[in-house]
Parts: sequence; C-alpha cells; structure tokens
Amino acid sequence: MDRNIQRMARFFADSPCKLRPHFKAHKTPEIARRQLAAGSVTGLTCATVSEAEVGVTLTNDILIANEIIGPAKCDRVAALARGRSITIAADSIAGLEQMGAAATRAGVTVGILVDVNVGQNRCGVAPGEEALTLARRVAATGGLRLRGVMGYEGHLQPVFDRGEREARARQAMEALVRTAHLLEEHGLPCDTVSAGGTGTHDITGRVAGVTEVQAGSYVLMDADYARLELPFEQALFVLGTVVSRPVPERCVADCGHKATTKDHGNPCVDGVEGASVVSLNDEHATIALPPGAAIAIGDRIRLRPSHIDPTMNLHDVVYALDGDRVIDTWPVAARGYPEQRSL
Amino acid sequence: MDRNIQRMARFFADSPCKLRPHFKAHKTPEIARRQLAAGSVTGLTCATVSEAEVGVTLTNDILIANEIIGPAKCDRVAALARGRSITIAADSIAGLEQMGAAATRAGVTVGILVDVNVGQNRCGVAPGEEALTLARRVAATGGLRLRGVMGYEGHLQPVFDRGEREARARQAMEALVRTAHLLEEHGLPCDTVSAGGTGTHDITGRVAGVTEVQAGSYVLMDADYARLELPFEQALFVLGTVVSRPVPERCVADCGHKATTKDHGNPCVDGVEGASVVSLNDEHATIALPPGAAIAIGDRIRLRPSHIDPTMNLHDVVYALDGDRVIDTWPVAARGYPEQRSL
Repeated sequence: MDRNIQRMARFFADSPCKLRPHFKAHKTPEIARRQLAAGSVTGLTCATVSEAEVGVTLTNDILIANEIIGPAKCDRVAALARGRSITIAADSIAGLEQMGAAATRAGVTVGILVDVNVGQNRCGVAPGEEALTLARRVAATGGLRLRGVMGYEGHLQPVFDRGEREARARQAMEALVRTAHLLEEHGLPCDTVSAGGTGTHDITGRVAGVTEVQAGSYVLMDADYARLELPFEQALFVLGTVVSRPVPERCVADCGHKATTKDHGNPCVDGVEGASVVSLNDEHATIALPPGAAIAIGDRIRLRPSHIDPTMNLHDVVYALDGDRVIDTWPVAARGYPEQRSL
Repeated sequence: MDRNIQRMARFFADSPCKLRPHFKAHKTPEIARRQLAAGSVTGLTCATVSEAEVGVTLTNDILIANEIIGPAKCDRVAALARGRSITIAADSIAGLEQMGAAATRAGVTVGILVDVNVGQNRCGVAPGEEALTLARRVAATGGLRLRGVMGYEGHLQPVFDRGEREARARQAMEALVRTAHLLEEHGLPCDTVSAGGTGTHDITGRVAGVTEVQAGSYVLMDADYARLELPFEQALFVLGTVVSRPVPERCVADCGHKATTKDHGNPCVDGVEGASVVSLNDEHATIALPPGAAIAIGDRIRLRPSHIDPTMNLHDVVYALDGDRVIDTWPVAARGYPEQRSL
C-alpha cells in the first residue's frame, strides 16, 4: 500500500494535473491520511455526504463527486462548508436550487462542478451547450460558486486493451476539456476539470486541461484492476480459514460474499498455485484445488478481492500489516449509512 | 412480514416437522423474536458464531449450521453452550477434535449434526457409510453429543420448475433420511434431521423423517425467490432518492450495490410500471424508464433487493413500517465480524 501511494504521488509530482484520491474505495481515515501526506494532491474525493463528514477530519478540501439531492443532505453539505472548500457535482437545475437554498440558509458558499456525461451514460448533462446553460445557472444562484466541470469516464476503467482504453479516454476527455473552454470563453470560471480513475490515471492525467484525477482503487488494488497491468500491487487480502475438505479436489473456506463481494466476479486465491474459487456463497468460498495441494482443515487462506470498494464497505476494521506482522487495526470509519437515520 | 411469519408457522403447525428460522437472512433480533413467537419452531439457525452470540439473547436452542474450525471460535461456541442447547455441523475428524477439546475445557456439551452432502457439493461427508463413520467418532469424543444429521439442498432452492425442484429435493432428502436410519440401525442417536430452505420448505418439510427446516428468506423475500411463486410477500425494500434524470428515458437513484447487492442480479424497481435497473454501481442505480414516466429529481424510489441476506448485512438498521408509517427502527445487531478481532 505504501508503495502504491508513493508511485501515484510520483506520477503527479511534476504534472500540472494533481491527484484527488477517492475515499469511497476504502473509507478508512488512516489510509486517506497517508494518501494526503504523500503530496501531489488537491484534496479528497468522496461519493456520499457521510464519507465527506468523515473526510473533513482529514482535509479542508473535499469534492463530493456526486449529485446531492434532498434538503436534509443539502443542509449537511452546507454545514461542512463553513470554513472549508466543499464542492459537489450537479447536473440539474433542481439540484442547484436545493443546494443553493441550503447554502444560503447556512450562510456559506458551496462549490459546484457541472457534471458532464463523457460517455458513461449515468448522470451528467451533455458536453457543450447543455453544460454551458447549467454553468450559467450556477453563476446566477446564491450560495453557490462555479468551480468547473467533472466528467467520469467510468465505463472505460475496465477496458482491457491499453490502446483502446487510451484512445477512448482521450476522446472522452476531449469533450470535457472542450466544454471547459466553452465556459471560459463565456466568462465563466472553470478552475477545476476533474476526471479519471485508476484505470485511466496515466491517460486522463496527461491530457492538457485536466486538473485532477479521482483515482481510488490504486491504493489497495483488486483482482479486476490487476488484469490491466497497472504499476500498483495488490495490498488488500481477505483472510479465511479452511473449514472443510470433503474431497481431495475441493476445500471450503469461511469467507463468502459477506466478506469479499462478487459484483466483479469471484475473488482469487492467493499463494496456492492452481487453486481457484468456483463458487462464493454468503459465508463460504468453495475452492477447486490442484492435485496434491497441501491444504488442511484449519489452514488460513488469503483471497484477493475482485472489487475493493464494496469489500471494504463490509468490514468495520482492517488490519495493517508490515510483512506478516499486524502493526495496527484501522477503523473503516465512513462505512454505513448515517443518512438512513434521516428518512 | 407479519403475514409471511404467520403463513410459515401455519404450514408447520400440524406437522411432525418444525421450522428453525435462519437468522443469517436478516440478523435482526426484532424479526427473529417474531419468528420464534409465532410458534412451530425448534429454535434458531445461525451461520456464524457471531450470529449465535446475538441469537442466545433470543432462544436457548441454536444450531450453527456450519463447520466451526479454530480454537478461538470453538471456545466461543463452548462458552455459549453453558445451560443452553448449542449444536454445530461437522464434516471432519479435525472439526470434532477441536470442538470436543473446547467443550471439555469449558466443561460443557456441544451438540453435533453430521453434515451430509446431499448434492450441493460444498461441505459435507457422503451419505451412508462415510456419515456413519463420522457419527461413531462423535459418539466417542468427549464434550460432544450426537444429535443427528444435516443436509442442505442449497443448489435446489433456486430451481424454477416446481416439478423438477420437487423431484430433486425428494431425491436429496431420501439420501439424508436413509443416512439417519443407518445411524439409528447402528444404535447411534439421530433425533434431528435438519434440511431445507425457503424454496423447498413445502417439499422437504413434508418428507417423512425430516424433523426441521432451516428457511430464512421467506420472512422478507427477495426478487430472486419471487420467481418461484411461493406463498410469501416482498417485505423488504431499499428506499432511494432520484438524484439525476439527464434524459427522459433514464434516471439515476442514490442506491447502488453498497445498499442492495447484485450477487443475485440487479434489484427490481417497485411501483413504477415498466421501469428496470439497467446498471448498479457502488452508489448509483441507473434505471431505464418507460415513455412518459412521471419521475422527477427528488422523488423517492423503492427497490426490491435481489438477495436479502447480503443486503441486510450492509445496513446497521432497518425501518419497520405499518403501511407507509415508520413505527420502529430495528438494529441489524448481528451484522459485522467480531471474529475479525481474534485474528
């Protein structure tokens, strides 16, 4: 993990583009603290208001890279903005009005990035005129300050072929940067052009005009991103115990998808040549073993999660290791949904 | 939920076979309390030691329907067994020796069900002679009491065709009951024959010789079990807020797979005719809308989870509704992994 943090910080060290590490990947203050201390960062990216409420204990510059809707959530964002730089993404007039009203009530200013759809087809207005129209509306809404644009090329993060990933990410960023220039041509401020993720950090992060990259997974990595041959190492493992070996060719460990999720496929078995997870149930990983595998009941087995974000979200704590030695226990402090309480 | 509980209790009311509701489905004491109060039950089924540690506040008869391995976990099970009937599943001599040693240390007796592989090919010894051999070993191990056999036909729960599900479940149970008879023929006690789940409750629950059914999902139901046309109603919903409607044919809600898992596929949209979740990310549900759908930013949207067990495991509390009115907030008290702390 430390090496991953250093490598990413070095990549952005001499670049006009900086890193805004995504807190959602791990939700763990002790990890975020190290990412911020390594330098080359603009602040922290969060996905939810809850994450930002923890994030403000770590930095005074937070981007919630997401649309925030509803008076209760907007009031919580406004409360965080007192004396801090808090920015959210927006793709609707309704969103601007709600956040503007909350900021005005609280007597603060909340930053806005116009969320631009760069091909992911999730949230975001169309690049160009549609983004310009919304940006003008930001400038005209009390309590808000236009900071720029955001465009997440999330659909390109897992593209395996490097050439294809690069070509498509450049095309997506071209639309985003063009939109940023359009805003500037119309006298609107556009200091921030925020984009990217772990899979495109070294593509998007080198596009002229992009000012920050929102990568998260690089810090711990997972079996899905490992396919891409990125310069980062697997640093998160789920430790299980072999509880059954009913036949020589199969064992079962006590870590299922309540311990390591399968939304990106089954986890991988680490350190047992030829072993693979063939099915993952709530509390069981059923593992196919190669002939003669020296695996006994009671043995510990390490799994490499296929997707770190939701896996970290399952756990209340993680263990920090130096080699094989546990050196600390870190709370996954931003896990859970305090929002639930304000139905 | 109340109707589901009553229906299941009525199904087992006049039957020699009873229900042992599975706590893993919801991990929520307030729900388990209602399941136990409805009658026709033998106790509670748990999947983990942590669940059992919460479960003993609700009943004195708990089956951990799982292999328990490692001295730390065995000691915790033994601690629960003082003055209570605690039973675990076992499929290995190593497992028996570890649990027997812990029970002996604690001066208690722990019940054992020999776990029989009835076709799921996860844990479990083979039916017949292999099970008999292990059962004899139980009887010869201090600190343990043989209570019978268990065989979970988990692979048959989702079989859509009723005729096929019925035929295959009967065949699986025939192997289990035959094994129970074999133990009895050899003078070994076999009071308990534990099996079944929501999808086979009315098949397995009517097989002569099966004494209890470990159903869990029936109480809240999910979109996966709904395919089977069971006599239970959807009682768990995840409430989201529409945060984006960038184009008429699509909206995005703020509930992704960190709120409702996708290990059994995407959740369903409840109450919006023709709407469906087309992709589910960490914090976003992207929903395809039919022409003219009256969905605005800020609207609340209800999703029907595709799998309740891991979905409940994501949340710290659930809200109890009477119609549309929130009448209580229930802790999901057995969520998380206190085991983590005893690495």
